[in-house]
Amino acid sequence: MKKRRVVILGATGTVGQRFVQLLANHPFFEVVALAASEASAGKKYAEAVHWHLPCEIPEDVRDMKIVGMDSTFECDYIFSALPSDVAGPIETRLVEQGYIVFSNAASHRMDQDVPLLVPEVNLDHIKLVERQETLGRLITNPNCSTIGLVMALKPIMDLFGIEFVNVVTMQAVSGAGYPGVASLDILDNVIPYIKNEEEKMCSEPKKILGRLTEDGVDLATFDVVAQCNRVPVQDGHMISAYVETSEKVDLDELIRAIDNFNPLKDYKLFTAPDNPVVYLPDKDAPQPRLHRDLGGGMTVSVGRLVKVSERALRFVALVHNTIRGAAGCAVLNTEIYEFLYGRGV
Amino acid sequence: MKKRRVVILGATGTVGQRFVQLLANHPFFEVVALAASEASAGKKYAEAVHWHLPCEIPEDVRDMKIVGMDSTFECDYIFSALPSDVAGPIETRLVEQGYIVFSNAASHRMDQDVPLLVPEVNLDHIKLVERQETLGRLITNPNCSTIGLVMALKPIMDLFGIEFVNVVTMQAVSGAGYPGVASLDILDNVIPYIKNEEEKMCSEPKKILGRLTEDGVDLATFDVVAQCNRVPVQDGHMISAYVETSEKVDLDELIRAIDNFNPLKDYKLFTAPDNPVVYLPDKDAPQPRLHRDLGGGMTVSVGRLVKVSERALRFVALVHNTIRGAAGCAVLNTEIYEFLYGRGV
Amino acid sequence: MKKRRVVILGATGTVGQRFVQLLANHPFFEVVALAASEASAGKKYAEAVHWHLPCEIPEDVRDMKIVGMDSTFECDYIFSALPSDVAGPIETRLVEQGYIVFSNAASHRMDQDVPLLVPEVNLDHIKLVERQETLGRLITNPNCSTIGLVMALKPIMDLFGIEFVNVVTMQAVSGAGYPGVASLDILDNVIPYIKNEEEKMCSEPKKILGRLTEDGVDLATFDVVAQCNRVPVQDGHMISAYVETSEKVDLDELIRAIDNFNPLKDYKLFTAPDNPVVYLPDKDAPQPRLHRDLGGGMTVSVGRLVKVSERALRFVALVHNTIRGAAGCAVLNTEIYEFLYGRGV
Amino acid sequence: MKKRRVVILGATGTVGQRFVQLLANHPFFEVVALAASEASAGKKYAEAVHWHLPCEIPEDVRDMKIVGMDSTFECDYIFSALPSDVAGPIETRLVEQGYIVFSNAASHRMDQDVPLLVPEVNLDHIKLVERQETLGRLITNPNCSTIGLVMALKPIMDLFGIEFVNVVTMQAVSGAGYPGVASLDILDNVIPYIKNEEEKMCSEPKKILGRLTEDGVDLATFDVVAQCNRVPVQDGHMISAYVETSEKVDLDELIRAIDNFNPLKDYKLFTAPDNPVVYLPDKDAPQPRLHRDLGGGMTVSVGRLVKVSERALRFVALVHNTIRGAAGCAVLNTEIYEFLYGRGV
Repeated sequence: MKKRRVVILGATGTVGQRFVQLLANHPFFEVVALAASEASAGKKYAEAVHWHLPCEIPEDVRDMKIVGMDSTFECDYIFSALPSDVAGPIETRLVEQGYIVFSNAASHRMDQDVPLLVPEVNLDHIKLVERQETLGRLITNPNCSTIGLVMALKPIMDLFGIEFVNVVTMQAVSGAGYPGVASLDILDNVIPYIKNEEEKMCSEPKKILGRLTEDGVDLATFDVVAQCNRVPVQDGHMISAYVETSEKVDLDELIRAIDNFNPLKDYKLFTAPDNPVVYLPDKDAPQPRLHRDLGGGMTVSVGRLVKVSERALRFVALVHNTIRGAAGCAVLNTEIYEFLYGRGV
Repeated sequence: MKKRRVVILGATGTVGQRFVQLLANHPFFEVVALAASEASAGKKYAEAVHWHLPCEIPEDVRDMKIVGMDSTFECDYIFSALPSDVAGPIETRLVEQGYIVFSNAASHRMDQDVPLLVPEVNLDHIKLVERQETLGRLITNPNCSTIGLVMALKPIMDLFGIEFVNVVTMQAVSGAGYPGVASLDILDNVIPYIKNEEEKMCSEPKKILGRLTEDGVDLATFDVVAQCNRVPVQDGHMISAYVETSEKVDLDELIRAIDNFNPLKDYKLFTAPDNPVVYLPDKDAPQPRLHRDLGGGMTVSVGRLVKVSERALRFVALVHNTIRGAAGCAVLNTEIYEFLYGRGV
Repeated sequence: MKKRRVVILGATGTVGQRFVQLLANHPFFEVVALAASEASAGKKYAEAVHWHLPCEIPEDVRDMKIVGMDSTFECDYIFSALPSDVAGPIETRLVEQGYIVFSNAASHRMDQDVPLLVPEVNLDHIKLVERQETLGRLITNPNCSTIGLVMALKPIMDLFGIEFVNVVTMQAVSGAGYPGVASLDILDNVIPYIKNEEEKMCSEPKKILGRLTEDGVDLATFDVVAQCNRVPVQDGHMISAYVETSEKVDLDELIRAIDNFNPLKDYKLFTAPDNPVVYLPDKDAPQPRLHRDLGGGMTVSVGRLVKVSERALRFVALVHNTIRGAAGCAVLNTEIYEFLYGRGV
Repeated sequence: MKKRRVVILGATGTVGQRFVQLLANHPFFEVVALAASEASAGKKYAEAVHWHLPCEIPEDVRDMKIVGMDSTFECDYIFSALPSDVAGPIETRLVEQGYIVFSNAASHRMDQDVPLLVPEVNLDHIKLVERQETLGRLITNPNCSTIGLVMALKPIMDLFGIEFVNVVTMQAVSGAGYPGVASLDILDNVIPYIKNEEEKMCSEPKKILGRLTEDGVDLATFDVVAQCNRVPVQDGHMISAYVETSEKVDLDELIRAIDNFNPLKDYKLFTAPDNPVVYLPDKDAPQPRLHRDLGGGMTVSVGRLVKVSERALRFVALVHNTIRGAAGCAVLNTEIYEFLYGRGV
């Protein structure tokens, strides 16, 4: 099979670098262009990027010349790792021009006809693209913390229903991009605020866990209360959740459901992990340093599962914020899109 | 006035060092003996201690010979900074022998006639000592995180009543003593479990915020759900709380109540801060590194106050775990006891 | 005595905040104006500054309106905490206008008639100001690491002479200003490079430890080889030094000399510590977290003193980089200038 | 080929875990027994170990029962990851019993007939085993920092000769084992002392870089001065070195020599990296977080190469302390031994 040609917008940023890494040896995708801001355009990738992943820059993009954001691309798919403050209009333009865009940016996530997609959770929402009236198409993935939360909530919702969620996060610095969080602010410290993050965690899960209808997505009816913190950790967002359910909680049943949770097992997707969610029974798990890379960073780890009352439980979940929580989810979204729709827009 | 003679049990530990520091220049108390385990007994304090506070060891205790735990003490008050696994029987023996013991250990906190005292919150509970049938007396202070929580909850309870509390903590490594948390376990990491901590946070607040009756303390009726995490911070426990109230929430009223909250202002207590609780309006406050030392480490900082619904709010609180959350609270307890009862047992 | 009126240029930066803190309760100096870049001018200090010291913003400057750098000042002394890339021409202009400027910036440090002053080390160099032909005067303090190094070297030079110095530093993030070092770059990491730092450490010590002559300062003849590293520490630069001497090394003699080292003891200077240099005999001292605040951050700690051969020794020194290594040294320079010259230019 | 059967002594420790990890999928070695202290003996490995590597415990050892240190082993090779304070007599006994032991412990490193082997540096020293008069044989690898140093020094020595080395290290916490360094001691801190480390760095390089003669190893004649520091980094020791040479320094020549340095390229060794030493030209390289895993953790990175004078240079080197600096080097030693001697003792 001929590889699909893909382009990465915002290729020099924290999430952009993850796209580069994940696509380096991808069997079906081939990076044909890297786009970034004017400051980087014209430079070789290795010269323009402040690379901060603990591996070498992949050979095939080292010397690739970065192009500007308004370039014309010869490609099948575009990945957007743009910052939300510039992503909106650029993505809109590209989709109008006929490109198929998979975006990690927040700009269009809550748009009516745009799938906010985590394939293991709401694969059916991908059908929203069929209602898009543009020449091209747009599929988004959620905020990094939200992805971890909804993947952990999905088996709970299926079994017991969800009435209320209170969530507190402890988020890694890579989530803020580069230069992002100043070391003066975070060494020996916790910052109990992340701009716009709580808003996203309250709204996005309701769309993702909502029901696809003829008019769009019927938002889920439970409320989410979120308080988001930055902690001195490189990668991996921790999520401490308290959940009130509609039905009586049975933890053994839930653990079995998590163990068996693998809605994508019948597709052959390169980036899909063997286990999208794992339950770790150790009393001090999950931990960012130990478990963020499970499943190549695509697996969400759940631990500290406790039944609080008849209809309430709590747990801790861990998600690798720049892999499963960003670039990895977008790549998986592209793989499932390719499987379902091919390139045939 | 002649200074009261005090003894510190467990003087070489993390909390013991804070006692030493806080009592170094205390106007009313004078350290006359330091007791520690057999391994340290007989050594000079400066030789036995692995001092880890960013100040020098106070001159007057540097060369003090450490005595064993079974010594006879000539003193007015004993501070117990013993680990909970050994504190129980030692404290019981001392109280039976007639000593007045102020303990930071968990062993007797929930005993019926033992005050679990945070003076700004439940000063009337101190009267429980009058029911103690021992020759001496025992007063305890709560767990470090619990102290921060109840001080922040007190104005809320007084104004609106409390129905339910869900709390997630991010706790400093000094709370685990020394050597305590291994650096291999916590650098670039979060540990979502602290032994026995969640249990204490669920039970202790109900006693502290309970009502003193003729039979003891009527526990408060709200439930606390707690999930406790260790983070790579030296000092200062962060508490993220979601609270459901009995009455409608009015944040302006609450902020005014916090600003005016100073139940001890009419006593002249050396260790009492000007403001036991402060509200910090900055959107990213409180933070451990910036605010843990407010009020000399005796002030609890509250921020991120949000009204969630008619009868629910959330906030973040910060408590210096080894000062207000341990040694400082015990010293304050002693000061108020001295004020109310003198030495006249 | 009427307090001297002082102005702080660059008052919102990392070093500027230290100036604000150190001058807050200064008995002889009074901050009458705060100057910063155009972006901050016109705002109240508390609104413009991203305050990151673990104390509250001093009351008397909270509401002070920040002025632009080209303002006219009514003052006795100006402190410059400007970044080196803008300091040069601004300082030149101010000195030409008649102001007396104490600068932490690198721009004019190596100028022939400008004292590069650490009062305990080269107080006589202050006389260079008498040769300045400007209306005002300019006195500089060295680079943060250099100050720690030369204070530790001074007693060695006096006793044994110095032939060669090889120095490796481990420097705190506050030395890079704000936002400075990105947390992504420094968590769980060491960066073996600090821009321009090695150059300063090689050149500045030779001027400071040089001899004042009629033509300026005769540079010291020893070579310094320096390799500078950034480490995940908030405050406090560690310096590991290997020194070859002219005469035979006697460590006991050196330790006595350090203990007695106090060239400023006959002056009554508010900011001068009791001991400018202390020798810490513990085998694992000094340490940034434990010893950076000795002497209010003005004391340099020396430890790990080892005689390597007849004419070589090694040691580790620690300097609080934003206090002794920057603002504190400038304030001390001003105090000694005031003592020697008064305001009478 | 039938796999060689290997045993790991001290399998639960920090270095022991690395042995387990590196041997998990080894094509020629198969772990047949894990030995540890009495406290662990009898337990399954997964139950006894406090696993702290960011990967899962390999399947084939999870349920392996740990045996005591005095067991009889059916094996070809024994790896010793024992702490130095117990390793000596145990290793001596095993070698007398006929086992071939590859040890990471310090106990026998400087013994006359024991190779202190880094195959890329002193492969000929392996012949010392032929002079061992025991039934079995003993081969050791050096201290973790020393390995990084000698691999970086080797090309320099070959080209220019070495007269003097002054080295300052910044070492990761994993080098201290578990629990090892307390987090209270190292967060926001540097500790300028590591027990016995400086002694090893001064003596071991002289044996490794010494010349094999009929009487043993003629120690190299240069002196090493070392000052060792612990920094808040998980893995990866940084070494800042100043080197005086016998001949004139030519950096271009040195860089070419490093690029071509691969003495083992003609052997087919599974654990040997493509490049045992790499030169990184970026001005801020190497860095522990970014480069410790190069070559699977077996490559030493060199950067900041500066010619200081005609016959002196300086550089920074980085070595993964538990892989190349410990378990990985021992495995490589075993591979080359197997190649040269087979099992035929």
